[in-house]
Amino acid sequence: MNETAIEQTIPEDEGYALDSRTVAAIRLAVAAGDRTRLGALLEPLHPADIADLLEQIDSGHRREILLLGAGFFDGAILSELDESLREEVISFMPSDVLAEAVRDLDSDDVVDLLEDLGAPQQEVILGALETADRVAVEQALTYPEFSAGRLMQREVVRAPEHWTVGEAIDHLRANEEALPDQFYHVIVVDPGMRPVGYVTLGKLLSSRRSVRLSELFEDSFRTIPVTQPESEVAYAFNQYHLISAPVVDDAGRLVGVVTIDDAMNVLDEEHEEDILRLAGVGESSLSDRVVETTRQRFPWLFVNLMTAIVASLVIAQFEGAIAQVVALAVLMPIIASMGGNAGTQSLTVAVRALATKDLTGSNVWRVVRREVAVGLINGAIFALVMGCVGLVWFGSAALGGVIAAAMVINLGVAALAGILIPVTLDRLGVDPALASGTFVTTVTDVVGFFAFLGLASVVLL
Amino acid sequence: MNETAIEQTIPEDEGYALDSRTVAAIRLAVAAGDRTRLGALLEPLHPADIADLLEQIDSGHRREILLLGAGFFDGAILSELDESLREEVISFMPSDVLAEAVRDLDSDDVVDLLEDLGAPQQEVILGALETADRVAVEQALTYPEFSAGRLMQREVVRAPEHWTVGEAIDHLRANEEALPDQFYHVIVVDPGMRPVGYVTLGKLLSSRRSVRLSELFEDSFRTIPVTQPESEVAYAFNQYHLISAPVVDDAGRLVGVVTIDDAMNVLDEEHEEDILRLAGVGESSLSDRVVETTRQRFPWLFVNLMTAIVASLVIAQFEGAIAQVVALAVLMPIIASMGGNAGTQSLTVAVRALATKDLTGSNVWRVVRREVAVGLINGAIFALVMGCVGLVWFGSAALGGVIAAAMVINLGVAALAGILIPVTLDRLGVDPALASGTFVTTVTDVVGFFAFLGLASVVLL
Repeated sequence: MNETAIEQTIPEDEGYALDSRTVAAIRLAVAAGDRTRLGALLEPLHPADIADLLEQIDSGHRREILLLGAGFFDGAILSELDESLREEVISFMPSDVLAEAVRDLDSDDVVDLLEDLGAPQQEVILGALETADRVAVEQALTYPEFSAGRLMQREVVRAPEHWTVGEAIDHLRANEEALPDQFYHVIVVDPGMRPVGYVTLGKLLSSRRSVRLSELFEDSFRTIPVTQPESEVAYAFNQYHLISAPVVDDAGRLVGVVTIDDAMNVLDEEHEEDILRLAGVGESSLSDRVVETTRQRFPWLFVNLMTAIVASLVIAQFEGAIAQVVALAVLMPIIASMGGNAGTQSLTVAVRALATKDLTGSNVWRVVRREVAVGLINGAIFALVMGCVGLVWFGSAALGGVIAAAMVINLGVAALAGILIPVTLDRLGVDPALASGTFVTTVTDVVGFFAFLGLASVVLL
Repeated sequence: MNETAIEQTIPEDEGYALDSRTVAAIRLAVAAGDRTRLGALLEPLHPADIADLLEQIDSGHRREILLLGAGFFDGAILSELDESLREEVISFMPSDVLAEAVRDLDSDDVVDLLEDLGAPQQEVILGALETADRVAVEQALTYPEFSAGRLMQREVVRAPEHWTVGEAIDHLRANEEALPDQFYHVIVVDPGMRPVGYVTLGKLLSSRRSVRLSELFEDSFRTIPVTQPESEVAYAFNQYHLISAPVVDDAGRLVGVVTIDDAMNVLDEEHEEDILRLAGVGESSLSDRVVETTRQRFPWLFVNLMTAIVASLVIAQFEGAIAQVVALAVLMPIIASMGGNAGTQSLTVAVRALATKDLTGSNVWRVVRREVAVGLINGAIFALVMGCVGLVWFGSAALGGVIAAAMVINLGVAALAGILIPVTLDRLGVDPALASGTFVTTVTDVVGFFAFLGLASVVLL
């Protein structure tokens, strides 16, 4: 299969994202140094797609595109871009273009942008903002990273309790310029600036002008503490179908609002983190270079090497048995592999259930019992299969019995480890997705080899 | 560690979800048959939390709660409930409560509910709807499962092109009763009912009555084909920061609208599917029983057994070598384990990147080259480590050399398989998360054992 063949046969994205043809045309335009053509190709693309384009090409091509198309890249692209590329791309933007671009962003997007930049670039961007905006952004940066305070936008549409629909609408019309790009509720506050309810814009539009706002409050109203971790914020949005939620400080005063698009973004990032951490990949982006990627992958492989050596030390205890019955060496990886996979199944279900708060103190023991029962039942079925395989392949009923017993033991232990290890890590405040895999496979390897070779030593020798 | 200790030490959920204390109190009320107390405990809970409660307890307790608390469960709980429990819970609801509850739901929620029910229960629910709603729901069910047509709500707020802000607001006020619970845009249609743009409610509220709607169109406007898979819809919402999007039929006519909360839900389900499939768990819910869970876990373990036997057959070819040098049996699981883990790392990055459309025909070969380079570099580092281990542990430079060479080969192959297998499956229209893991570990096991034992046979014997 040559490169062109596979490029053409990967299914295209049904009208979304970049198709390979556009990417190829852009590359051609850049190679030809055709600035007009490049502009024409970039113009119809959404900033998110242009960001994807920059992520998909290598750094040499990226440099060429950025140099040729300097004027075509605006601030929205920066928000969409993978964090690892932002500094690189910003360094190609003329500072007036950068300043202009940043001024159009909502405060939460500016904060998101600043978080990952070095001090000199932060200065340039902060300097480009109007004073009020700069103060707002600097204030947001005082909240802990990954908190609601960083996620929220500070532009809030609020109204006092005693207002009517008519007064609220007049106020909106009078302040058209100052309104956020997107907002979904008018937040009603008491005289101490504490949110007491909110009204959807739909209700505001469809109610008579004389109706009081307080008669139109939504049931879904709930506030978010400014220091709450963003993962909890995303959970609340998903669980309670929120569209926007007011953020309050320690005194309960309104300081901002989180909207569902930000929450969706966090949810997506949390998922990415979970799935990558489960596989022993810390952080990863397709635009990372070889050296960075090697560094990211190395630690978990190293930990895995250590645990594999531990498993080997267990095997080494039974060298004598293996020398006498070489079939043990042939069969032992089967036990380890089945244990590892059964453990990973339980583990993944547990990690996911902890993330969605479905696995709690109330049901953990019921889940443990279920997992172990499932492990033992599957263990028994596979014990039967492997017992026969052992008997037929090596003509030894005793060997068949040993492998069958080891299978039941290892699948039972795998289930227990697969659930208790992530639950315990979660209890200790460690992300269970991060370290559980290593612990679980160490347990199943050690138990599997020990049970199989130990039983074999007793029964066969 | 006893049960109570671990129950109490699992971190509570910062005001969200159910805390163990509430669950315990509810159980007590049910055990005491105290209907009033149960009602008082359920009353402040969000339907999503009550659904979680029902999912977290076992079926015996669930039955008791449902019998005692029959009147307290409304239709919203059904929408929140895990699909595997809906039939069970519906069977406990008096049909008038069910009918009443269902009538309050938006059409998309009713469709979502009906999809997973048996025919008799579908009849009950359809019978409870008013004629117009029933026709709408039946129409939605004619669209393919997991398509935009099933996901959308049919209640749409639309306006003709020539309307002004004032006309739109007057129309909304006059039709207050018929408006959807939540809507974020007024969709502007041409005389053929084709959407041509949309206006946010914020713009509508803050603009003068004389402004024409067409002057207020948003840039973000894009339509969704009614047959588009819901995963693509969720991707578009996430990529382009959509809040709602009109859904059109083949002729481009407006048939409904998808809102971001539904898209967020799909995104969450897609992630769950990916993470579980990668671990060889098809579908899973904590409320599944032992038998169902065993059945769900079995197939992948069975496939894994087959592939493990294939790996064993490779080992069996080298029985003679192992009998002469037992150290080979001790060390060979290390090679397989490292290969399996390195392969899983590449695989997971690839599966995730395919899901987010970051890995495309345009960059697949660059990514393959990067992964293989990373695999070979890490392979070389671990080759050095293991070479030393082999030398020190077994006092054989030749054995050290063999394990070092096998390590480089296996980590290089692992990287190649880890990326090419999911890309190929994706090209063939198979979900790469579903089957890649098995293929990749089979490749790394077979290559690892063959390289290590084969080299050993040549070099050491």
